[in-house]
Amino acid sequence: MSSIGVGIIGAGVMGAEHAHILASEVAGARVVAVADADPGRARMAAYSAKTMTDGEALIDEPDVDAVLIASPDATHHRLVLAAIAAGKPVLCEKPLATSTAECLEIVEAEIRSGRSLVQTGFMRRFDPTYREMKTAIDGRSLGGVRVLHCQHRNAAAPSWFTGAMAITNSLVHELDICRWLLSTEYEAVTVFPFSPEEGSGGDPALVVLETQAGPLVSVEIFMNAAYGYHVHAEAVCTSGTIAMGHPALTSTRGSGKEERQYPQNWIPRFRDAYRIQNQAWIDGIRDGALHIDGSTAWDGLVATCLADQIVEAMASRQRTRFVLPAKPRGNTLS
Amino acid sequence: MSSIGVGIIGAGVMGAEHAHILASEVAGARVVAVADADPGRARMAAYSAKTMTDGEALIDEPDVDAVLIASPDATHHRLVLAAIAAGKPVLCEKPLATSTAECLEIVEAEIRSGRSLVQTGFMRRFDPTYREMKTAIDGRSLGGVRVLHCQHRNAAAPSWFTGAMAITNSLVHELDICRWLLSTEYEAVTVFPFSPEEGSGGDPALVVLETQAGPLVSVEIFMNAAYGYHVHAEAVCTSGTIAMGHPALTSTRGSGKEERQYPQNWIPRFRDAYRIQNQAWIDGIRDGALHIDGSTAWDGLVATCLADQIVEAMASRQRTRFVLPAKPRGNTLS
Amino acid sequence: MSSIGVGIIGAGVMGAEHAHILASEVAGARVVAVADADPGRARMAAYSAKTMTDGEALIDEPDVDAVLIASPDATHHRLVLAAIAAGKPVLCEKPLATSTAECLEIVEAEIRSGRSLVQTGFMRRFDPTYREMKTAIDGRSLGGVRVLHCQHRNAAAPSWFTGAMAITNSLVHELDICRWLLSTEYEAVTVFPFSPEEGSGGDPALVVLETQAGPLVSVEIFMNAAYGYHVHAEAVCTSGTIAMGHPALTSTRGSGKEERQYPQNWIPRFRDAYRIQNQAWIDGIRDGALHIDGSTAWDGLVATCLADQIVEAMASRQRTRFVLPAKPRGNTLS
Amino acid sequence: MSSIGVGIIGAGVMGAEHAHILASEVAGARVVAVADADPGRARMAAYSAKTMTDGEALIDEPDVDAVLIASPDATHHRLVLAAIAAGKPVLCEKPLATSTAECLEIVEAEIRSGRSLVQTGFMRRFDPTYREMKTAIDGRSLGGVRVLHCQHRNAAAPSWFTGAMAITNSLVHELDICRWLLSTEYEAVTVFPFSPEEGSGGDPALVVLETQAGPLVSVEIFMNAAYGYHVHAEAVCTSGTIAMGHPALTSTRGSGKEERQYPQNWIPRFRDAYRIQNQAWIDGIRDGALHIDGSTAWDGLVATCLADQIVEAMASRQRTRFVLPAKPRGNTLS
Repeated sequence: MSSIGVGIIGAGVMGAEHAHILASEVAGARVVAVADADPGRARMAAYSAKTMTDGEALIDEPDVDAVLIASPDATHHRLVLAAIAAGKPVLCEKPLATSTAECLEIVEAEIRSGRSLVQTGFMRRFDPTYREMKTAIDGRSLGGVRVLHCQHRNAAAPSWFTGAMAITNSLVHELDICRWLLSTEYEAVTVFPFSPEEGSGGDPALVVLETQAGPLVSVEIFMNAAYGYHVHAEAVCTSGTIAMGHPALTSTRGSGKEERQYPQNWIPRFRDAYRIQNQAWIDGIRDGALHIDGSTAWDGLVATCLADQIVEAMASRQRTRFVLPAKPRGNTLS
Repeated sequence: MSSIGVGIIGAGVMGAEHAHILASEVAGARVVAVADADPGRARMAAYSAKTMTDGEALIDEPDVDAVLIASPDATHHRLVLAAIAAGKPVLCEKPLATSTAECLEIVEAEIRSGRSLVQTGFMRRFDPTYREMKTAIDGRSLGGVRVLHCQHRNAAAPSWFTGAMAITNSLVHELDICRWLLSTEYEAVTVFPFSPEEGSGGDPALVVLETQAGPLVSVEIFMNAAYGYHVHAEAVCTSGTIAMGHPALTSTRGSGKEERQYPQNWIPRFRDAYRIQNQAWIDGIRDGALHIDGSTAWDGLVATCLADQIVEAMASRQRTRFVLPAKPRGNTLS
Repeated sequence: MSSIGVGIIGAGVMGAEHAHILASEVAGARVVAVADADPGRARMAAYSAKTMTDGEALIDEPDVDAVLIASPDATHHRLVLAAIAAGKPVLCEKPLATSTAECLEIVEAEIRSGRSLVQTGFMRRFDPTYREMKTAIDGRSLGGVRVLHCQHRNAAAPSWFTGAMAITNSLVHELDICRWLLSTEYEAVTVFPFSPEEGSGGDPALVVLETQAGPLVSVEIFMNAAYGYHVHAEAVCTSGTIAMGHPALTSTRGSGKEERQYPQNWIPRFRDAYRIQNQAWIDGIRDGALHIDGSTAWDGLVATCLADQIVEAMASRQRTRFVLPAKPRGNTLS
Repeated sequence: MSSIGVGIIGAGVMGAEHAHILASEVAGARVVAVADADPGRARMAAYSAKTMTDGEALIDEPDVDAVLIASPDATHHRLVLAAIAAGKPVLCEKPLATSTAECLEIVEAEIRSGRSLVQTGFMRRFDPTYREMKTAIDGRSLGGVRVLHCQHRNAAAPSWFTGAMAITNSLVHELDICRWLLSTEYEAVTVFPFSPEEGSGGDPALVVLETQAGPLVSVEIFMNAAYGYHVHAEAVCTSGTIAMGHPALTSTRGSGKEERQYPQNWIPRFRDAYRIQNQAWIDGIRDGALHIDGSTAWDGLVATCLADQIVEAMASRQRTRFVLPAKPRGNTLS
């Protein structure tokens, strides 16, 4: 079976990371083109592949069999639609698009194409730790889940972060992974921001999500947790719990303490999830897969749509029932 | 300095435990009398001390210097008042009394007595693990607390437990210890019971408490957690966190697993807290202490008063602002 | 039952600690006298008890019912013999005496007295963690022990430490606790000092002990482990292992790490073991106990006798079979 | 750059695993042929690649660019020599050969070929946890290593295992990884088998290795540890320690315990090490690498040669100084 030629749009941190992973750690893939508005950045990420500045032109290249989008969020909608129009599989970094309407347009375009072409890059679904939790939850050896506790802690928010971005940029990962873990949809949300009156910007915030199937989801989202990047989850079930272990491989003792390290950002924590996600994506394309083994376009829509409503719920501090558009019918929705 | 003669009222599980601790592990104390409606039970707990069936008569015994109350909840109010009337220090198992009005009566009687006589038996304040957390929080080496996460899990609720007792019997411990850890008062509460519509009785429930000083308190209260008795707390501060370790002293490996055990109820977990509490109580009496190094009568009132309001908040599922009676002035309130 | 009047000889770090424990945390004891060559030091430790400079005079005081010896090692032999002569129970800090001959003299004097009077202060036998390991080992739920791994790490050896003191001062604790844990006697020893040729003084050393019952004991003894005081043991059994947990009560996260602390010396680690040892000693005296619930005089002899032979084995680097004096017969040896 | 055609000899558990890894998780490789004496087994492992029964014929296939040997131990010597003769890179599962003389023949043949062709499959050198330890040790932030403690525990030895195989089959991994971690050679060994007189076959055994650079290596090798497959290492340095964490990704609580699982054999534990090893091997071939980033032929010789001497030391129970053949000179020895 011949290898898949991948074109990558966007050569920033994530685009370069994807190019490196696809070129050197994924079986069956070749990076054939990298596009970035900054030609130097494209060349840095491209090794020997061809480079270009126009993402849409890259999609049209004949040796590009599949497209990976890691360009700025605002460009995702247009580029994903272009990939669908070209009939090429596309893996798009989250968010799928920046509004529910745009996401819906993508969902509908994919359905019209008659094929499963769009994967949203919620890589946590491929993280071995989350996979192990999912297997344990689905196996129900401890009964059903009653509460899912999550902590999402970043060492420090970038300077350009606004309060809403804690939801739209970080919490979206929790939104996607928890409904996947629990196999249910959310019903309502209540947000408790930390002392907003004192100008702390509501960081951290406690987000309580109620689900249709019953389990409660409790998320602490802390953008400036200072000590490191730390994502944790614990499922409290009828007769026991399942929790993530500490991600460090080794521990050290020194200066009066035993220590285990946290990474400073998400890349070391989820490096393997990206590799496995990309391998699964390539495998699916080579097999001519009829479904997406990851987040679909609809999953991308749900994340964007709910995040917008949580931003409002955070401002109002009211319990808010979620509203979603009707899910279009079509055989491409996994 | 001569030893303190202690009279114990109630010889059930806790009364017998207190008698044993005071007789065999506390310096400076003698158990001189044990009262219980069931004379056989009193004799079992009393060793060589005298026994009686009437708690008020015990309080009046001349060689009883101090009184420990571990009788049924409904009797606490009357017995504490009797001890105050007799001018004898009293350590009362929680709850101090079963209504706010009764608690207030005790608070006011103690003030009128002009002495610090009443300690409410929230033993967690003497638990070495909570003490270490308190010291770390007060030292502020990681900045101020922003969120305090707590889990209170019982292996199984007794058959006679009703939904409200999860609050009045178990959550009260969290109410007392968290305001002590954070040195602040609560402002409001929102309760999220697990799928009440399916008759699960709201177990577990998530309880979100907002405080006057800012920190959020998130409590999972789970009466039928099945796997064991497990109390956990984690303080999330500005630049780091402080959390309880696993309480097991040893771990075993066997049958494919590494294991650490949980106790089946609160006694092994807090055995040392009871001993230290009782030693501190005796030390205070011997020193003629002018204040209570533990929960005061007012602290007992706060716990009872707030628990009642949380029971209502659980039923209404509304965010509820707490109301407390005005705190009486007096030099006996620590 | 009346309380036991205790006289303490030696008011250094350990003597003062014992005085404090007996006075403020042990039921049924009174500290009635403290002796130290330095009268000021005796007064600091004594609170309201009488003080003296002569240990033998203290033993003869009529209100001294029992004697605790925490004076310099060289004085132990003489003082323990004096206590036996006075017919008073004596708890002697390790070592019981500094030579096998002196220990044997004590063992024989105690037998002649016809009573169990002498306890050697190997407090680890009362440490809750070691007790839990002992219970698990004796219960044999994981089969018999095949290897017992031990680490004994001090933050830093005192400046006056010589290489032999690593054995006679620190390793003796391992010698006593491991034969107690395993209920067997040692057969032979081989010592592997770390690169002695480079003047590091053989620190750390690996000490491999073979036992009569079969289990191997592997001890790492490290006097300058730098990071803290850390004692660890793991019993490897036929179908599983039993190991000590980390002694810290809480963990913190900060500066990129999760941390659990170690103490800087043995006192915080074994504080509770001293309290429980002292309580058990007092309880035994009050009960008129016919045996010692701890290390006996014979156990003290074994530790001293074997340590001397291990010092020689360390120098020779040869496998050395142990030789012990014949155990005298007598009803006082537990 | 075109991909590397790999021929695999041996389609048992490990050969099939390697075929799967190279075909589906390694960038830049194609499995072009699989040879096994059992044609059906070869077909099972080969997917669409061609199959054959003769390993030497496979080596001569023109589209075989590189050879992976996972056939029975006794065939390694002959097949590695054939690959060298064909001028093709070869990755040989341990042992490189079953005698020192055979290993030396391979080392010399490789030198004569003038190229670095032979890698011995000690996959642990690519395990992320060992890599992290190596980086920490080499960084010397805690000073030099003084003791390296290792545990190598198998759930159960296969029925055909003899005592010597604990050394030649399992301990060889420790021999290779510890000299790599410590960057030194061994000087002497002493073995302490568990109660051999009782027919337990010396399982577990303690193996103490002295090194030229000074650090002591203490290995517990336990072939029937029952509870699972568990490999652990702790480096005790001048001012602190570095240890492996528990390999489990998640923990569960249930039935009174918190649990973390161990795998039943080495494959789950080292699955990622095999993948990374194979990727690095392919990368080196594609880059035309002049050295082996892993265990060389000489490393394979050292492991075999020392294991034989340790088998004798185990029987004699004497401290044994190691003897190695002179290391041949040549530019292919990394």
